[in-house]
Amino acid sequence: MSLAVEILGTTAAVITTLCWVPQVLRILKTRDSSAVSLPAYGALAVGSALWLAYGILIWSVPVIGANAITLMLVSLIVGLKIRYG
Amino acid sequence: MSLAVEILGTTAAVITTLCWVPQVLRILKTRDSSAVSLPAYGALAVGSALWLAYGILIWSVPVIGANAITLMLVSLIVGLKIRYG
Repeated sequence: MSLAVEILGTTAAVITTLCWVPQVLRILKTRDSSAVSLPAYGALAVGSALWLAYGILIWSVPVIGANAITLMLVSLIVGLKIRYG
Repeated sequence: MSLAVEILGTTAAVITTLCWVPQVLRILKTRDSSAVSLPAYGALAVGSALWLAYGILIWSVPVIGANAITLMLVSLIVGLKIRYG
């Protein structure tokens, strides 16, 4: 596997992990989460938890790291959605 | 790798792919996307496109399939956000 391909995969992982930061900030700033779908983010939290378990079982540090952070951010969005409705 | 671990990973992939269906449906039903963060979904679209390219380069059908569908659903959310604001 070439280094360029690995860099591409790592960049993809970093972007799809950190993209939830602006969503968290938007809800915190506006105190509005009306358009956010609870089933979508609930499912994403469950999915990230399963990815995390999978990452631990196959011991893949990138899968573990990306999904631990995603799970944290997405759980925060779910909590804010429950709070602000 | 045991079959149970593979089933766990596949379940995680299916959930984190299809979780965007309820978000698309919610925006279509309410015509409201005010609380949706454009930078978050824009970044997620770019990230999914990079995952898709990575999947093609390493020829992983699960990575290709999951990210092709995610890219489609997330692009739809970005389009709806631009339309409804």
